[in-house]
Amino acid sequence: MTSTDITLTDPTSMDKADADYLISLVRAIPGFPKEGILFRDIMPVLADARGLSILMDALVSNLPIANDEFDAIAGLEARGFLFGPALAERLGKGFIAVRKAGKLPPPTVSESYALEYGEATVEVERDAIRDGERVLIVDDLIATGGSASAARDLVISCGGVVAGFSFIMELSGLDGVKALGDHPTSSLLAMPA
Amino acid sequence: MTSTDITLTDPTSMDKADADYLISLVRAIPGFPKEGILFRDIMPVLADARGLSILMDALVSNLPIANDEFDAIAGLEARGFLFGPALAERLGKGFIAVRKAGKLPPPTVSESYALEYGEATVEVERDAIRDGERVLIVDDLIATGGSASAARDLVISCGGVVAGFSFIMELSGLDGVKALGDHPTSSLLAMPA
Repeated sequence: MTSTDITLTDPTSMDKADADYLISLVRAIPGFPKEGILFRDIMPVLADARGLSILMDALVSNLPIANDEFDAIAGLEARGFLFGPALAERLGKGFIAVRKAGKLPPPTVSESYALEYGEATVEVERDAIRDGERVLIVDDLIATGGSASAARDLVISCGGVVAGFSFIMELSGLDGVKALGDHPTSSLLAMPA
Repeated sequence: MTSTDITLTDPTSMDKADADYLISLVRAIPGFPKEGILFRDIMPVLADARGLSILMDALVSNLPIANDEFDAIAGLEARGFLFGPALAERLGKGFIAVRKAGKLPPPTVSESYALEYGEATVEVERDAIRDGERVLIVDDLIATGGSASAARDLVISCGGVVAGFSFIMELSGLDGVKALGDHPTSSLLAMPA
């Protein structure tokens, strides 16, 4: 199933043929991972050389802040790992991994956040963020903003400054961006939840 | 703890100052994730802008095959995600995600492999690999080769051809590379298990 309900958040930001091609590669899977959820799959974008190239170029040109307004990029495991380091390298920054609990060696700093049932914990290495370092947080998708908010709190706990957020996809109507607080934020693509 | 027991697999492959800098960023943590294991942490390499840039350049120049000898890069969740797509984009290839079971939407192809206790299962999307596509498999570390062998079997199950393997780190003395079979393989750094 292709996704015809996806739009560019900023229609002036990309060549139309590139945008159409990118959107045509995002697959929609009803009922995954459970009934009632319409899963948006970006893996076919990455598996396509042209799609991957368009995606990375578009993320760079859609950053919510200028390149001299941040020092490092933090990305959330696992899908934020797929493009966070690639972005960081292109922009001459370092990359900070926000991982699920127990994966990073000590010393780490942890933050828990609520899931639909129960909670999840994410961690960073304590020494990964320097005092006052300005960190752009990236992930593939913002829904309710729970995991991105936890990443924000981790950056602050480590003495860093949240410079902004960059997402590939934003589910409209869930107020995820509002949950992040007052930070520059961009999403490349928008779609119904 | 810094890692003074790490060597370049091919000492002629990199500028010595760059190699020394890269190696100085790899942290060694004794007893993680459990007693008796010396964990090698590459996250500080990625968190350092110069380290990340040196690492990506070195991986590109240390590929075991020429750029026209493969069509796509497959990387293993989660640390293979950190540099697989970045490599793929630089080389004009697509990226195929090899994920832990249950993370990818159907239809998928699965492969199980033995762990010290029990087993693990990895998956790819069935349509991610075209018939005859030549796939370079990347991961951060090769130890006994269990997960890389499972990725190899997945590529073959999907009708692809294993073009080779590229690792950042190789633990010497574990015969991991031998377990992969007769494929072009490169590791940037070598160290005792």
